Amino acid sequence: MNPRTIISQLALLSLVLAGVILTFGLVGELISSDHDARTAAHALIFVGATTGLLGGIGWLATRRHRAAVDRREALLLVALTWIVGGVVCGAPYYVWAHRTAIDSAPAAAFRSWMNCHFEAISGLTTTGATTIVDIPTLPNALLLWRATTHWLGGLGIVVLFVAVLPSLGVGGRRLFQAEVSGPDKGGLHPRIRETARALWIIYSAITLAQIVLLRAFGMSTFDSVCHAFATMATGGFSTKDASLAAWPNLGVQITTIIFMVLGGMNFSLFYRAWRGRLREIFDDVEFRFYIAILTLGSLLVAMSIYQTTIHTTDGGTVVASAGVAAREAAFQAVSIQTTTGFCTSNFNLYPVGAKIVLVGLMFIGGCAGSTGGGLKVIRIWMAVRIMGHELERVFRPSVVRPLRVGGSIVSQELKVLTLAFIIGMLTFFTAGFIAIMLIEGDNITFETAATASVASLCTIGPGLGLVGAVENYAWLSGWSKGVLMLLMVVGRLEVFAIAVLFTKRFWKPN
Amino acid sequence: MNPRTIISQLALLSLVLAGVILTFGLVGELISSDHDARTAAHALIFVGATTGLLGGIGWLATRRHRAAVDRREALLLVALTWIVGGVVCGAPYYVWAHRTAIDSAPAAAFRSWMNCHFEAISGLTTTGATTIVDIPTLPNALLLWRATTHWLGGLGIVVLFVAVLPSLGVGGRRLFQAEVSGPDKGGLHPRIRETARALWIIYSAITLAQIVLLRAFGMSTFDSVCHAFATMATGGFSTKDASLAAWPNLGVQITTIIFMVLGGMNFSLFYRAWRGRLREIFDDVEFRFYIAILTLGSLLVAMSIYQTTIHTTDGGTVVASAGVAAREAAFQAVSIQTTTGFCTSNFNLYPVGAKIVLVGLMFIGGCAGSTGGGLKVIRIWMAVRIMGHELERVFRPSVVRPLRVGGSIVSQELKVLTLAFIIGMLTFFTAGFIAIMLIEGDNITFETAATASVASLCTIGPGLGLVGAVENYAWLSGWSKGVLMLLMVVGRLEVFAIAVLFTKRFWKPN
Repeated sequence: MNPRTIISQLALLSLVLAGVILTFGLVGELISSDHDARTAAHALIFVGATTGLLGGIGWLATRRHRAAVDRREALLLVALTWIVGGVVCGAPYYVWAHRTAIDSAPAAAFRSWMNCHFEAISGLTTTGATTIVDIPTLPNALLLWRATTHWLGGLGIVVLFVAVLPSLGVGGRRLFQAEVSGPDKGGLHPRIRETARALWIIYSAITLAQIVLLRAFGMSTFDSVCHAFATMATGGFSTKDASLAAWPNLGVQITTIIFMVLGGMNFSLFYRAWRGRLREIFDDVEFRFYIAILTLGSLLVAMSIYQTTIHTTDGGTVVASAGVAAREAAFQAVSIQTTTGFCTSNFNLYPVGAKIVLVGLMFIGGCAGSTGGGLKVIRIWMAVRIMGHELERVFRPSVVRPLRVGGSIVSQELKVLTLAFIIGMLTFFTAGFIAIMLIEGDNITFETAATASVASLCTIGPGLGLVGAVENYAWLSGWSKGVLMLLMVVGRLEVFAIAVLFTKRFWKPN
Repeated sequence: MNPRTIISQLALLSLVLAGVILTFGLVGELISSDHDARTAAHALIFVGATTGLLGGIGWLATRRHRAAVDRREALLLVALTWIVGGVVCGAPYYVWAHRTAIDSAPAAAFRSWMNCHFEAISGLTTTGATTIVDIPTLPNALLLWRATTHWLGGLGIVVLFVAVLPSLGVGGRRLFQAEVSGPDKGGLHPRIRETARALWIIYSAITLAQIVLLRAFGMSTFDSVCHAFATMATGGFSTKDASLAAWPNLGVQITTIIFMVLGGMNFSLFYRAWRGRLREIFDDVEFRFYIAILTLGSLLVAMSIYQTTIHTTDGGTVVASAGVAAREAAFQAVSIQTTTGFCTSNFNLYPVGAKIVLVGLMFIGGCAGSTGGGLKVIRIWMAVRIMGHELERVFRPSVVRPLRVGGSIVSQELKVLTLAFIIGMLTFFTAGFIAIMLIEGDNITFETAATASVASLCTIGPGLGLVGAVENYAWLSGWSKGVLMLLMVVGRLEVFAIAVLFTKRFWKPN
């Protein structure tokens, strides 16, 4: 491995990020109306300029080493990207908090570097777990920047998973590769570029559509942009403490539900639809299973909460009629399963049956190749089918039933990989849960520690108990936040891409 | 499927059980010295006679249908055996409780049929979860009968798994089959009979050795027999409420530790040692991993409890010196991992670190082909190796490293089966945990429900919280007890053998 090649790539990333942050800062400077807004704009400009300077130096210093990265370098690069990205994207909060004259709750929280870093990683991984309250007191420039970390992270992930990682053969993506790359696997580079561009356009178009719709239903332009960014990325940062309950308008809520469903879909389906193969969406076994689970999950939650008292996240209470139960259940179930994490009611106070269904949906997650996290719908589907086959073989050992996904037979190797992936995710979930129990000791319940672990690993955001829908993550110790950030990145990159860095063989020269 | 064939086999089982129970009753009648002991003896005679009568009628009525069972009939038979066995073996408690004049705690508990059935299934599956307190007030004949359900269940399981089930190709046993049956897989019947006889002799010989040793260290003959029965079966029923803390003698405790380790070993290793291939034990990869985990688990628990206050199960407290910590940690870790469930101290009051290690050991369990439950050491070993290979393939996709167990390469099919088995067990654990949470509602904590589920599924007995080392299962509702009994049988027969009964295809004619 050549460290200079990797530094060169990281420097390039820094330059790109610096450009985005500087743009935000300069626009913020132009339109800022009060002193605090200017402080935020200056913080963005300062961070953007510093990052640009460091990135430029790194880029120039390594100009002789811009070789193509090999497989191991690429994996290390993907992991380091998250560290650099987390540091750079968290810095504007930190600089603002230390320079603002206003003594708001976000300013107090962001004076801790750990909270800024947590907020940035939570944003980039599209988790949406936050460390702040009184969210609207954060200057608009930073609120928009916070939503943008989601949007960039989401786009990055889609491009990474649909276009880049399959060619690295990372983990569970081999399945996906077989579906997407098509017959011309040979010439990867031009194809990756073309696919990435198409995905970028599709992603932007859907985001724009959501902005227009939210605006039409009466949300302000600023809030529409922030929420559309957070929805497409299945992130979950809102501009209000009450999350989507701040807009009780049915149009806003249904629009959000629909776009969360889109965010949890396999983006290659949009790509195919774009190329005129709309029918393939409805023939896709994962899509059908995804919709079935979403529907069943919503129904079960609705039945469980029907006629109970619902505590909305804006502090109100309402006894759930059939209509209210259906709407709240659909919103919460879709938000959780797509791993977005928006809320309209405090599901921590739902009956235990509804909570169990929601925790189950947390593990399932979105579709492969989406911005959603979790085990992924296609893997659950495959695991269920594999279990069924193994059971039948107990009493009919000679029966062979090939497992088909999208027309091609799943190999034994891919079955092993899929099941190993599920066990790997469960191992990380358990390890995270135990680590947080040990770190926090008597301050934390089983329920809070377990759901903090799954809500981070599956990039959802809110869990149950003290990390529930109306709570936040600021109270956890620094070590716990570190564990949760690791889980977010592990879940975001799908276990193997990170776990591989902890093996001895990875670091040994061949 | 022919129901008459199955009834014929169940009738035969009833006759065997009736013979055992009648013998117990008649001997009890001869040596009983007080009125309550005679009541217990009469209960055994009554149940034995009734079972014998019903079994005889069933046997005669189906005499024309004694055909060989096919694969599906055999699986159904194995499951029904547990239902019949549970009813027959629980009946003596019930009859005694309703006829005794003494108003003891066990008599009160056993007036509920559910508790009697639970105690019997817990005994036969070698779990050792109990519903009674003031255990010594139970008449000796019933105490011995209770320990005997362990011993019979343990022997039955070993014979079933080492000799019978592999020929049915049941679930995870295919691995085992490859190791044990050797080259002459063709002629199964004579070989099964020979193997079963050898295992029976080995099992009895080891039990006898433990009785002699316990007796030598000062335990009464009666208690020695009861505890040896419970140890070899990795069951866990004791004759005292304090379990093994009632004998603080180091000799007794170390003897128990050693024989628990033997009980958790693959019995085919004893078979091979008996045939002069002693070396093979130490070459066995599962045995080595088993000892390594036991050692590491004991060490971690010892470190965690060192210098804390230990609450022994006889009600005493002691600050753990290095020696006490080592002894208590070794006893508890070995008891838990071998899935026996004897206790000398209340590990529910251990520091959280020790508790986490013990819960981890619960899932791992004993070796394949032992009387122990859990996921089984060999599967954990295989899963770890498979994960390692998959990780390496991320950055070295062309490297193929065959996985070897006992000299032969593990097929992709067996890898899929092993991982599917682990996921299946975790699914049953989760389902059981959720079911108990829903049934008990606010009466139960996460910790109690989760460990009740794993302690039953992995046939250990005590869990944490309200089902901890000094607690019992009597307080749970009847539905919860039903769920736990199902988990015990599922865990005992290793998931697939029971799960298969819930598939539609099993019941469809070909």
